[in-house]
Amino acid sequence: MPKQRPGHPRGLCAVDVIARKRDGLRVEAEELHWFVSAYVAGGVAEEEMAAFLMAVYLRGMELDEVAALTMTMAATGKPVDLSGVPGVKVDKHSTGGVGDKTTLVVAPLVAAAGAPVAKMSGRALGHTGGTVDKLESIPGLSCEMTAAQFARQVKRIGVAVAAQSADMCPADKRTYALRNRIGAVASIPLIAASVMSKKLAAGADAIVLDVKCGSGAFMKDLRSARRLARMMVEIGARASRPTAALVTDMSQPLGRAVGNSLEVAEAIEVLRGEGPAEVRELSLALGARMLVLARVAGGEREARQRLEQALASGAALGKFRQMVAAQGGDARVVDDPARLPRAESEAAARAPAAGVVRAIETQAIGEIAHQLMREGGPGAGVTLMKKRGDRVTAGEAVAMVHGDAGARRAAAEVAGAFDIGQGAPRRRPLVLEVITAGRAAGR
Amino acid sequence: MPKQRPGHPRGLCAVDVIARKRDGLRVEAEELHWFVSAYVAGGVAEEEMAAFLMAVYLRGMELDEVAALTMTMAATGKPVDLSGVPGVKVDKHSTGGVGDKTTLVVAPLVAAAGAPVAKMSGRALGHTGGTVDKLESIPGLSCEMTAAQFARQVKRIGVAVAAQSADMCPADKRTYALRNRIGAVASIPLIAASVMSKKLAAGADAIVLDVKCGSGAFMKDLRSARRLARMMVEIGARASRPTAALVTDMSQPLGRAVGNSLEVAEAIEVLRGEGPAEVRELSLALGARMLVLARVAGGEREARQRLEQALASGAALGKFRQMVAAQGGDARVVDDPARLPRAESEAAARAPAAGVVRAIETQAIGEIAHQLMREGGPGAGVTLMKKRGDRVTAGEAVAMVHGDAGARRAAAEVAGAFDIGQGAPRRRPLVLEVITAGRAAGR
Repeated sequence: MPKQRPGHPRGLCAVDVIARKRDGLRVEAEELHWFVSAYVAGGVAEEEMAAFLMAVYLRGMELDEVAALTMTMAATGKPVDLSGVPGVKVDKHSTGGVGDKTTLVVAPLVAAAGAPVAKMSGRALGHTGGTVDKLESIPGLSCEMTAAQFARQVKRIGVAVAAQSADMCPADKRTYALRNRIGAVASIPLIAASVMSKKLAAGADAIVLDVKCGSGAFMKDLRSARRLARMMVEIGARASRPTAALVTDMSQPLGRAVGNSLEVAEAIEVLRGEGPAEVRELSLALGARMLVLARVAGGEREARQRLEQALASGAALGKFRQMVAAQGGDARVVDDPARLPRAESEAAARAPAAGVVRAIETQAIGEIAHQLMREGGPGAGVTLMKKRGDRVTAGEAVAMVHGDAGARRAAAEVAGAFDIGQGAPRRRPLVLEVITAGRAAGR
Repeated sequence: MPKQRPGHPRGLCAVDVIARKRDGLRVEAEELHWFVSAYVAGGVAEEEMAAFLMAVYLRGMELDEVAALTMTMAATGKPVDLSGVPGVKVDKHSTGGVGDKTTLVVAPLVAAAGAPVAKMSGRALGHTGGTVDKLESIPGLSCEMTAAQFARQVKRIGVAVAAQSADMCPADKRTYALRNRIGAVASIPLIAASVMSKKLAAGADAIVLDVKCGSGAFMKDLRSARRLARMMVEIGARASRPTAALVTDMSQPLGRAVGNSLEVAEAIEVLRGEGPAEVRELSLALGARMLVLARVAGGEREARQRLEQALASGAALGKFRQMVAAQGGDARVVDDPARLPRAESEAAARAPAAGVVRAIETQAIGEIAHQLMREGGPGAGVTLMKKRGDRVTAGEAVAMVHGDAGARRAAAEVAGAFDIGQGAPRRRPLVLEVITAGRAAGR
């Protein structure tokens, strides 16, 4: 029986593409290209894409297929043109963690060290905060800009952090929303295609990925995090965009602050050469990779030295001040963080008994902070005073909760997210693995 | 994070139901009920149902789940009320085969033997013809009737064959169309729920199923056919509708005629006590089960005797004549089949070499007949002159093709669907297995 519907070029039909994936067969690049383009143009319906995505979730995809899917998704919108900006432009992406404010540190830091940073960011997703929401807690600051404005700012001051526009990669925008609705989010091939299609469309020449791993991340174990990282690095290589990935620990929130303006304040501390050591360390590790890929530094060591210099000299902090001003923000917050939005009340979360912090329910902390901000605005959130391995006495504050009238209730929930027991927990390195094209270096 | 969307009762959310099935977990009856009802009411979207159906296709469903799905689907429309008709009303369903005209024989035959037959039928699906299309090739006859007209006709003359109305089981109508679009048709739990929801909604007290098995059927092998049959029989039992299933051979077309009016003519031959032995035999086997379930006969043997009597006495043929007239058809065709629509030209399909018919590509024959009717009307189709195991000489006609100008080309295709070789093929029994509630009797 003829299966071809009128109007479908080359005899391709949505149900055939779905059926191939359903049966665990390989879908060819040409088929994926037609299917995704037709979806964006309206010729493939939401329910057809939904069935396809569920089949991918359950059947998986080979690297070749994911690479083809990524390229075709990246080509559905208007890619950003950064060809007018001199140098190797570098972008950075995190798969999403609780308290992850590294972009706020890394973007100005790497720019101060000499590599143009063209960073496209998203808004909050589920329990993980979004860089755009964090930055926009600075009074007046906006991450909404056209592609031309984005390119101009990178050219002028060496750094911009912009919100992804809807027309940059519509296939990703629409499939991401669909995946959320149908329960097809936690699929390694689909996450890889989503992240990398946005990064390819965002126009940078090189990409550094921070793949979070642990209880507070999408990837709960090292094996899946490594698979995702390798897949994305390989896709970058095939698209001639040098890409490296760090698999990093997300078994507890990063640093101490969780909440939009709280995290901006912590990032400013790190840019001043202060703040939590782990935020500084991760920023240096990511930044060094960016400098190497941007060919500003010959190797990791040289890159680190440049970054440490930029921190020590105040150049990084100055670049942040310049970026805030360029994006319409009140640059005075950089020297006077008290100007950032603040929650109206505070409450301490206290340890019910003495012992050692054995674990922190990272996702719960993220969700509580999210809820506190919904009720109390961008100044709300959680400041951790104890982290994994720290000793506490009974009744000692383990965290401070910032919010409106609901802060006291939230404090009890935050206290419940701390697992306090006996015996020190196993130490986990912050950077679990570094993955570059063609090899995975343990670390 | 709260996953509940406003308006969803009892905290149920489409993505949670989908995710349970995606993860291979059991979906509870209450969840299925909400999901299907909300889908029919518009609260669950096509893409959510599509993802769910694909997850069922790939993850399967337990009997409990399929039973709950079936009951909830059956309850989405207006079930037919046959309570005003005395006796145990019996329905019959075939999963679809090429040349399967048994309903045309069985419905009047069983009615003539004393059991009220309330038969709801579908239109053609893919390569298998639909009983409604076949009957409606009789000039003037219509299977379109309201539920009240259907019940009245069964009460008055003991038999009616009606087209399913759209409002009888909307969940099935919509999910069936969706499954076709997204490639989720060939799933045993979904086929079972589709067939049985329609049969439950159609109002009969007892159901006999003909589960086709072989190259020309949805179920290619005995294992899957048996699984499907057992599932449907068990669902019937749980719904207090005694159900039996015959698993029957569909490795070649049933009888000789394939095409709407050609099959009506062959059914009339069988009702006259003539026609192909296998059509008669299958009609007797199905009809006997129906009489037993309708408690008109105490056992299989008694049932067969009654049916054979009804054929020999002309009572079955008379009941068919009466049914044709009741549904507006020209009853004269029963005694003068030349009044049925006829194709304008004929061409013989000839054996390229001498030998034995080892196999016939059943699906191909169905598709060719379908195409011939599209071009040449309801009188077009294929008449097989040779079947599996028959000897042929080179150039001998193996089939006659009826159509318009395209008949000659189709004849070559029909000849190509015959596998002619050396050595007799293995004999296959017509009825492979009989499945009744609680046990499967080999046969």
